Amino acid sequence: MANIVVKKLDTTPIEERPTEIVERKGLGHPDSICDGIAESVSAALCKMYKEKMGTILHHNTDQVELVGGHAYPKLGGGNMVSPIYILLSGRATMEILDKEKNEIIKLPVGTVAVNAARNYLKKVLRNADLEKDVVVDCRIGQGSVDLMDVFDRKKTDIPLANDTSFGVGHAPFSVTEKLVFETEKLLNSDELKKELPAVGEDIKVMGLREGKKITLTIAMAVVDRYVNSVEEYNEVKEKAKAKVEELAKKLADGYEVEVCINTADDDNCIFLTVIGTSAEMGDDGSVGRGNRANGLITPFRPMSMEATSGKNPINHIGKIYNILANIIAHDVAELDGVKECYVRILSQIGKPINEPKILDIEVITEDNCDLKDIEPKAKEIAERWLDNIPEVRNKIINGEIKTF
Amino acid sequence: MANIVVKKLDTTPIEERPTEIVERKGLGHPDSICDGIAESVSAALCKMYKEKMGTILHHNTDQVELVGGHAYPKLGGGNMVSPIYILLSGRATMEILDKEKNEIIKLPVGTVAVNAARNYLKKVLRNADLEKDVVVDCRIGQGSVDLMDVFDRKKTDIPLANDTSFGVGHAPFSVTEKLVFETEKLLNSDELKKELPAVGEDIKVMGLREGKKITLTIAMAVVDRYVNSVEEYNEVKEKAKAKVEELAKKLADGYEVEVCINTADDDNCIFLTVIGTSAEMGDDGSVGRGNRANGLITPFRPMSMEATSGKNPINHIGKIYNILANIIAHDVAELDGVKECYVRILSQIGKPINEPKILDIEVITEDNCDLKDIEPKAKEIAERWLDNIPEVRNKIINGEIKTF
Amino acid sequence: MANIVVKKLDTTPIEERPTEIVERKGLGHPDSICDGIAESVSAALCKMYKEKMGTILHHNTDQVELVGGHAYPKLGGGNMVSPIYILLSGRATMEILDKEKNEIIKLPVGTVAVNAARNYLKKVLRNADLEKDVVVDCRIGQGSVDLMDVFDRKKTDIPLANDTSFGVGHAPFSVTEKLVFETEKLLNSDELKKELPAVGEDIKVMGLREGKKITLTIAMAVVDRYVNSVEEYNEVKEKAKAKVEELAKKLADGYEVEVCINTADDDNCIFLTVIGTSAEMGDDGSVGRGNRANGLITPFRPMSMEATSGKNPINHIGKIYNILANIIAHDVAELDGVKECYVRILSQIGKPINEPKILDIEVITEDNCDLKDIEPKAKEIAERWLDNIPEVRNKIINGEIKTF
Amino acid sequence: MANIVVKKLDTTPIEERPTEIVERKGLGHPDSICDGIAESVSAALCKMYKEKMGTILHHNTDQVELVGGHAYPKLGGGNMVSPIYILLSGRATMEILDKEKNEIIKLPVGTVAVNAARNYLKKVLRNADLEKDVVVDCRIGQGSVDLMDVFDRKKTDIPLANDTSFGVGHAPFSVTEKLVFETEKLLNSDELKKELPAVGEDIKVMGLREGKKITLTIAMAVVDRYVNSVEEYNEVKEKAKAKVEELAKKLADGYEVEVCINTADDDNCIFLTVIGTSAEMGDDGSVGRGNRANGLITPFRPMSMEATSGKNPINHIGKIYNILANIIAHDVAELDGVKECYVRILSQIGKPINEPKILDIEVITEDNCDLKDIEPKAKEIAERWLDNIPEVRNKIINGEIKTF
Repeated sequence: MANIVVKKLDTTPIEERPTEIVERKGLGHPDSICDGIAESVSAALCKMYKEKMGTILHHNTDQVELVGGHAYPKLGGGNMVSPIYILLSGRATMEILDKEKNEIIKLPVGTVAVNAARNYLKKVLRNADLEKDVVVDCRIGQGSVDLMDVFDRKKTDIPLANDTSFGVGHAPFSVTEKLVFETEKLLNSDELKKELPAVGEDIKVMGLREGKKITLTIAMAVVDRYVNSVEEYNEVKEKAKAKVEELAKKLADGYEVEVCINTADDDNCIFLTVIGTSAEMGDDGSVGRGNRANGLITPFRPMSMEATSGKNPINHIGKIYNILANIIAHDVAELDGVKECYVRILSQIGKPINEPKILDIEVITEDNCDLKDIEPKAKEIAERWLDNIPEVRNKIINGEIKTF
Repeated sequence: MANIVVKKLDTTPIEERPTEIVERKGLGHPDSICDGIAESVSAALCKMYKEKMGTILHHNTDQVELVGGHAYPKLGGGNMVSPIYILLSGRATMEILDKEKNEIIKLPVGTVAVNAARNYLKKVLRNADLEKDVVVDCRIGQGSVDLMDVFDRKKTDIPLANDTSFGVGHAPFSVTEKLVFETEKLLNSDELKKELPAVGEDIKVMGLREGKKITLTIAMAVVDRYVNSVEEYNEVKEKAKAKVEELAKKLADGYEVEVCINTADDDNCIFLTVIGTSAEMGDDGSVGRGNRANGLITPFRPMSMEATSGKNPINHIGKIYNILANIIAHDVAELDGVKECYVRILSQIGKPINEPKILDIEVITEDNCDLKDIEPKAKEIAERWLDNIPEVRNKIINGEIKTF
Repeated sequence: MANIVVKKLDTTPIEERPTEIVERKGLGHPDSICDGIAESVSAALCKMYKEKMGTILHHNTDQVELVGGHAYPKLGGGNMVSPIYILLSGRATMEILDKEKNEIIKLPVGTVAVNAARNYLKKVLRNADLEKDVVVDCRIGQGSVDLMDVFDRKKTDIPLANDTSFGVGHAPFSVTEKLVFETEKLLNSDELKKELPAVGEDIKVMGLREGKKITLTIAMAVVDRYVNSVEEYNEVKEKAKAKVEELAKKLADGYEVEVCINTADDDNCIFLTVIGTSAEMGDDGSVGRGNRANGLITPFRPMSMEATSGKNPINHIGKIYNILANIIAHDVAELDGVKECYVRILSQIGKPINEPKILDIEVITEDNCDLKDIEPKAKEIAERWLDNIPEVRNKIINGEIKTF
Repeated sequence: MANIVVKKLDTTPIEERPTEIVERKGLGHPDSICDGIAESVSAALCKMYKEKMGTILHHNTDQVELVGGHAYPKLGGGNMVSPIYILLSGRATMEILDKEKNEIIKLPVGTVAVNAARNYLKKVLRNADLEKDVVVDCRIGQGSVDLMDVFDRKKTDIPLANDTSFGVGHAPFSVTEKLVFETEKLLNSDELKKELPAVGEDIKVMGLREGKKITLTIAMAVVDRYVNSVEEYNEVKEKAKAKVEELAKKLADGYEVEVCINTADDDNCIFLTVIGTSAEMGDDGSVGRGNRANGLITPFRPMSMEATSGKNPINHIGKIYNILANIIAHDVAELDGVKECYVRILSQIGKPINEPKILDIEVITEDNCDLKDIEPKAKEIAERWLDNIPEVRNKIINGEIKTF
């Protein structure tokens, strides 16, 4: 029986607090590139393991290090001089002992991982030439024997927690959160890229709300080959700004929204890139240093430090509990009388993952609302999701649930 | 003039909330090893730059990737079979143009970085043999030209913010926070290592408070050569437990404290290591995924995602503002009438670092206390520290301020 | 004035000696892969330097290390599990000082090198999938300042020798040499691949002549996806053998030629590969350990140890003198009365490359022939080629002269 | 029964030929550093395998790539700015299947290899600080399964040849060969280093004999911290020159010997180094590109291309046959009536190594001497050594036989 606690949180709801800071690192940000690769590698390994072994074997590929390259962006089209170096590391079951044949069998971890990483990069960095701009290296190693053991037991039924760790989630998104999140989605959407191909994938959105005023500070890479002059560069910025302002009207009605794109630009220095990401010019990245599992960085909200991307979706608490906490928070927040919901789930190493040491639900309620009415429903939601972990896992593997 | 805002936070103080989760990853945890190396490399580069160039040049060495090795721990003494691989990356000014001599001068970034990393490892992993157990590799590259430019301007006076980013801090530590923090310090202290040399450096402390009960779940590596039997292993755990209980009596008077060390141990599997860290056996690590600048991970408190360790102490907001936020919170929390204080500082890229876009101070006050009395004092504290950034910087370089 | 010496060599011509051993490592042999990459990278850098700087800058990319992958070949089609890792190293001018603009300019050495290597691999390993089977990494560094200086002076006229070193060549090819050389060419020809796609690129031909009998021992990788049974595998071997025997009839008329393909095959072990090279399964390679500049390894002939591939074609003695020695030997061997010719050219570091310390020509003459008649013609040939070094250089860059 | 052939070679003995070129790359030359590391790693693995498994397991560590660092030598003492990077690769049995326990056991290949390399470097580069000047990385991988199989059979008796390959040797050394060989030994001897600590380990000796005149062109690194001025630098050169001239008097009596040290020196450029090797400043190296198994490069003598260093001493033809060929040549050359001897041994993959396909002995005899008298003795010598291969192997492992 899970230890589920529902409590009233006696604090000012986020929307009523005077200040709020929200950040999202876009798909082409060096840290997000690493997150995306890590998650792609994990998903590809899951598929390979299932195909070859009938079950998902132990792995955690939540370690990707991106070492920035060197580029000479130039209006009209520059070039890269040193490639970006990407090191895949982490652990994966690379060999198993076929006890019947008394043989060691090696699994294609290295080739599958390199392939997944390169395929992901092709999708996310449209303007890069992977034959010269990026080196993908791999030092993924075999996992510890003991961890494989913990994993083995799981085949029967419910996996056991890999660690003493926790996940954190909240809901609903505030207006600022929604706006920051959707702004990046918009600027990295296929539609916008068709209209404004010069907009690179490295987009960082920083939202500051002061009362009813929201300032969106956007760092947006511009791809050099599509702009032949500073005028054209500025035009791209203007058009992108207009798109975001349009979005803001929909999502932040009633707020004054100021959109600032590439504020550091001056005569000597504009955010011009060859392939659309600052990784081309000395910006490094790694997994788990950017967006949380909900896609945002929110210093006015509780967060977990765990890197969600790349961890195995079977028994890694740092992945499953973070995703679960967000899902549960989302459903609880939809209950009548709930204004905001915060969920934290703490595991105990070696215990079944559907039996957390504590699943803590905090709710800010409507004034007229009694916790007693909410508590049983919230518990039911939590219990249902703890029972549904396998379904969540499948959605992760299929990419239906995003991790960053 | 800095935009400093002081506000009352209308929420239940942490100690009165029913639940609290606090974590600290000890010095020998793979993530902390990376944090420590990153910070050592930055400090060593600062010294080298000062010595050679009279000023600290641009660098950010907050990218260290640790790829776990492979070990066979054994009661009485096992051995490592594959070394730990550590990749130093990040950016540093490696060459400068001597405009008078019309010459490119290379600075000893690579050798200084490798040296700093190896020296740090010797200190922190007492039981490792660096001649065989660890490979330290280096791919630190030259920074972007534009960033160097931002850096240049600073020589005059106040450096300009390198990015639009923020720092977060809070004070005072709750009882659980203090206890978690000091428990790791104790277990990694020279005194304890003398008495219990079998206690490894990889120690993770997870504190869960439920009302007045605190559970400390400790994962503690034991070094195999010092224990010849499971009995001796258990004895080490018992003695360590007694030490922590003793500490808890002092720091958490009035609380029931349960101390659990290596709870996943069973007949087949104990936390035995050759060199005292799980990095020896497939646990990977990277910078900025563990403790925040205050040494803790606190999902019930606001946090920043920024890796503090390894960033340059001159103009990197992700470093300076996180440290500053903690310092300011600490001083404000000592004001009469303040129960708790939360500080967030947001920069604007290209603006002087002592002029943040917003410096947001939230205080939970004593019942009888008026914000009006606190506000001017809090502002004064914040202003004073904004003026004292150079002093903070020096303390960072000298290692007086810890970053993880 | 070059120090050219022509001497009579008083020894039995190779064809009359009782034994001869000749070896050629084919295009897909790990060592040859490295040679080919090294030479492709050098040629690509030459083109880039010319395009960007109007002249070829200093470089030596004769350092490529191939670390074998791991594969599971299987009749009908297996797969690779760990990619081949290829490290490009060596030196190249990566940055130059634009003294007028007082600026450091970086040249696209890394991206050009990675690109050249990947393009070469695509051509030479038809059955590899470069998106997953091979990792190409690059650690090419800036050359020493002093060497750049030596290089600089050359812009005027004749480059200066980069080292005290020598080149060696001989002509004509013996029957066994011709046969070994052409056998590999045949087995790696487009025509043969069309007819026998199962023949991999990793082909090693070892020729042993004992009197009038030549034994060709051929190690020939077979690509698994094209053969569904051991019978089909053997059929491929038989067909290849027939092709070689046909060739032998043309080239070695009057000799008994025995062709042995994959003699180590037995019931447990055949030379089956996934992508056509032993590099897929743990065979490593590096530059300069395989064929000499004439395409052969000839322990009954004098050889140089210098790696020819990848060295710069401007002033690197190890490249230019080896190629030149072969060319001169070839021309001298065509003189009336000359049976065999051996050429050795020794440089002196810092002297113009057309003024070798010694250019030593040894000839085995027809019985009725006087050295006096040959000497002036041989000298003239040598002098002419010393004058024609720039032409040789261009042929190297265009790939008209092979280096391995 | 081995196929041993003894033949008369009808050619001018080397001493009577007008020209001769001989080269030796000293211990600190980048290629020799790689050879030395490769051989040290193999020897260390042999010891480890014997200790752990009772027998030497399959390995070939003849792949070491050295990527040069970057240094600023300065009279009185400069410093290195980028470390030398050394990649160990090759193959070694890293894991074995304990069929009784049904367990995979990993062997400490990585740690032993890194340790052996670092220890070797400490010995051979006296002036390097391994804590900062050198990075030793390791990508040694598991060997191919098939090769392990060939190896297995050997446990019974005589190992089987790993490949179709050959070894080459000659004896005796000519005067020029002896002089070149001993000159490097002298300059790298402990005695000389005591007297002239400024003499670095990177010493390349090139000997050119023209008739009775020998020119020794020596490139000799000088270590900067021991010389405070160009005068002191020149003094070191003078003293070293005097030592070599003294040696020449002993070894090359009757020859005119000219000794030239660092002939490329000029006002701008002397061969000054920080740690005594050109590897510090962009000179790369790899295994098997320098000295042959007899310690020399001899373009007037037959040579093998095989890298001897780092190959396993059990069944690798490229190692064993090269060493054996030299030993046999040496013994045959001592027979009465033999002036010179050349030995070539060709293997056949999969056949016992004491049954080469051909062992070819060529002798140049004294005028009055009949081959008939020599043939049976030479055959006996060859047979005896084929029987003594295990003894040779032990000497290799103990380091009594040098490989470069």
